[in-house]
Amino acid sequence: MATLPDKRTDFIEWYLAVVETAELSDKRYPVKGMNIWTPYGFRARRNLDRILIREIEATGSEAVEFPALIPQTEFAKEKEHIQGFDAQVYWVTKGGSTDLDVPLVLRPTSETAMYPVFAVWVRSHRDLPMNLYQIVNTFRYETKTTRPFIRVREIHFFEEHTCQVDEDAATARVRSNLDAFGRMAAAFGLPYVAVRRPEWDKFAGAYYSIALDIPVGAARTLQIGSVHHYRENFSRPYEIRYEAADGGSRYAHQTTFGLSERLLGAVLAVHGDAKGAVFPREVAPYEVVVVPILSATSGDAPMRAATEIVERLTRQGLRVHLDDRDDRPGAKYYYWETRGVPLRLDVGARESSARTASATDRLGTRRTVSLDALETEVEGALTAFDQALLAKARHEFAASFELASTLDQLKESQHVRQLAWCGSEACGHAIEHAIDGSLLGVPEGPPPLDAPLPAECIVCGQRPGVRWALAARPL
Amino acid sequence: MATLPDKRTDFIEWYLAVVETAELSDKRYPVKGMNIWTPYGFRARRNLDRILIREIEATGSEAVEFPALIPQTEFAKEKEHIQGFDAQVYWVTKGGSTDLDVPLVLRPTSETAMYPVFAVWVRSHRDLPMNLYQIVNTFRYETKTTRPFIRVREIHFFEEHTCQVDEDAATARVRSNLDAFGRMAAAFGLPYVAVRRPEWDKFAGAYYSIALDIPVGAARTLQIGSVHHYRENFSRPYEIRYEAADGGSRYAHQTTFGLSERLLGAVLAVHGDAKGAVFPREVAPYEVVVVPILSATSGDAPMRAATEIVERLTRQGLRVHLDDRDDRPGAKYYYWETRGVPLRLDVGARESSARTASATDRLGTRRTVSLDALETEVEGALTAFDQALLAKARHEFAASFELASTLDQLKESQHVRQLAWCGSEACGHAIEHAIDGSLLGVPEGPPPLDAPLPAECIVCGQRPGVRWALAARPL
Repeated sequence: MATLPDKRTDFIEWYLAVVETAELSDKRYPVKGMNIWTPYGFRARRNLDRILIREIEATGSEAVEFPALIPQTEFAKEKEHIQGFDAQVYWVTKGGSTDLDVPLVLRPTSETAMYPVFAVWVRSHRDLPMNLYQIVNTFRYETKTTRPFIRVREIHFFEEHTCQVDEDAATARVRSNLDAFGRMAAAFGLPYVAVRRPEWDKFAGAYYSIALDIPVGAARTLQIGSVHHYRENFSRPYEIRYEAADGGSRYAHQTTFGLSERLLGAVLAVHGDAKGAVFPREVAPYEVVVVPILSATSGDAPMRAATEIVERLTRQGLRVHLDDRDDRPGAKYYYWETRGVPLRLDVGARESSARTASATDRLGTRRTVSLDALETEVEGALTAFDQALLAKARHEFAASFELASTLDQLKESQHVRQLAWCGSEACGHAIEHAIDGSLLGVPEGPPPLDAPLPAECIVCGQRPGVRWALAARPL
Repeated sequence: MATLPDKRTDFIEWYLAVVETAELSDKRYPVKGMNIWTPYGFRARRNLDRILIREIEATGSEAVEFPALIPQTEFAKEKEHIQGFDAQVYWVTKGGSTDLDVPLVLRPTSETAMYPVFAVWVRSHRDLPMNLYQIVNTFRYETKTTRPFIRVREIHFFEEHTCQVDEDAATARVRSNLDAFGRMAAAFGLPYVAVRRPEWDKFAGAYYSIALDIPVGAARTLQIGSVHHYRENFSRPYEIRYEAADGGSRYAHQTTFGLSERLLGAVLAVHGDAKGAVFPREVAPYEVVVVPILSATSGDAPMRAATEIVERLTRQGLRVHLDDRDDRPGAKYYYWETRGVPLRLDVGARESSARTASATDRLGTRRTVSLDALETEVEGALTAFDQALLAKARHEFAASFELASTLDQLKESQHVRQLAWCGSEACGHAIEHAIDGSLLGVPEGPPPLDAPLPAECIVCGQRPGVRWALAARPL
């Protein structure tokens, strides 16, 4: 039983070891940065998708799927966008032994695949709002070091693209997306901060970008999603126009909402511990594992009880796994701990004759559950586990931020810094230079730390327009 | 309301019109043969996937996902396989502005992506059987005419790949797959025939191939899936070996099972009629549509009743849609008929005051359902609809075959021909030449038509090895 690297001091090494030990992803595929979703990892991904689908469809968005290949001619229409992605797209240049007349891009994101068709679909104000999403894989020729789930070259991706009647309606859609993300994050047990990125760091082609960031490791952050307001930046080059109620012709205002498998990386990064992965129940490949403990004298009563438990909980709609492998109980406990299963139920001779099971959750809380009240007691144990996990995550989240009132504090902090900024690009770059990192931007709503806003910018000391901002080194 | 082309005389034109009228797929994407899954089409696809997942997982198969890009070096390892696909693969040759050292193939199927990794995963007989499946998109540079769902260049694809201890175990897996397909086909209401393809028409690299065929149009057939036994044909070049219980090193025997969005095309082709699409309930985007019928004197009682119906049926787990658009009832009836919804419930003033709804299924059967017994009566109506649809499909299936006892009958038949064949390649090609089509092969189990097997081959008149075979022009 190998010991994992220390999460605090060697975050990335710890993270890589957690993913590998839990067998969530296999990186032995012969293309760098393109990993295999193993059976166990795929179960987690399916749960991730289910949560995303449930919450986005609750807001009236509908699923579609556009092709993976985009003609060069369409890809090149919005200048900033093409510049933003040009260096990191894969090109399909041949079909069989024939050179293609028009080279095709493997989608890095789907604006340029969808919007030529949106121009056909959107005709009248009665077609709006049009809220469509897809869950597909996207491709980026990453030059940075790849990491499972966090930075890969084939990305499991969620993207919503909407068309709205005007800027206000698009702003309202951005709000609705942020609310939906709040509900998704609750299922993942992930505290986060929504931050409006500075001008120089917004998405290629966006009017503005709101990123969803979480603190990870020491003073690092990870962007786990984003919501963008495009105004008319894409609808003009792609000619997405509609006939308004007054008969006039208007360009649609557009928004997008992007998430990815990185959410799974975030779940591992935030909840994982010295023993390995820890999954909140909604994402867990199995919510419950049942381990029958057999001995020379136990007979088959523990196995019969274990089977009954699995059947009853499965009927209840839970994801349950019976570990009936021929192996020592201790080895099984270790195995399921590294894999992050929320609740383990052990049944030996004593338990089966008392019609009970011994329940241990992934945070170490033990209790005895009675088979007579199995369903309610397991439900109670899982709910208590999720609450404890969220409380722990919230505590660590709050402890990740630090106020920086001076440039020296800014430089020396080992946390994500909360600071006062005048909003100017010059001061923004000075902050980034000071920490060798990024100005994440201005929090939407209250900042992580509740403190009185200083009167002056941390860099220039000027007063006008001072606001809270966050700064850190993104992972 | 445009009339559709005649299904019997202009099958393909009829099919294309059904897909377009029902708005299941949009072919206005600017890459030929790569179509868009519309919201309505995507709902059908999701149901298709759900049925496949349910039935394959019931046989102990687990979901994985391998990357979409395959290095040329791995792709080229099995010679027949590469020859079979070489002319129809897309090549990725550039990342950003860099030429890739090793060109990458966009998977046309995943043998060559998976098997180098299977060689690492399979170590011992305890790792076997290994039954893994994935649902992904595959890519083929088709040179034939493309058709929505039936022949496309980006294909929504199901593929199971298994490793077994020996040939018998692999044969048993082939059987298990055929049984699983039987359960899937029942959900789709699709009668079919499993046919062992002749040697010259098997899958590239297979030991043998069993195709799943359905009759469509006049004397045509459509292959809707296949199960292959690979023996050691791939495990040898990819070195998939395991340590047997006796300590020896053996090559795994492999099987695959492939299905695709073509199943959706088959559902449309088989069940569709002069009015448009007809969906069996399990595949239907919506099982029930509710249409409130409002008039100047109706008040809001019909709308309240319609809303109650939608809420109750949704709670019951049904896929229900409320059509509250501001449009004439007749226009709505037509709209949902072309889209193939199994059951429509209309509620006007008379129905709402009587606490009833008027139910019309897609085959035209009408009944009145009482809101007091809504759930059971709707369930009963849907079950009766599915049974009637299957009976109709079975009748048409049986009528699609014809016995051919002479070469003249073989040539003149306007059906799928059932004939006696000696098994030789020469006679097989003579049959294909005679009908300008294909010898589909030998049915697994009883042939479609129950008749005494002739003593002699229809071509050479020889006796040894005579068996039933089927011949037709594949679509």
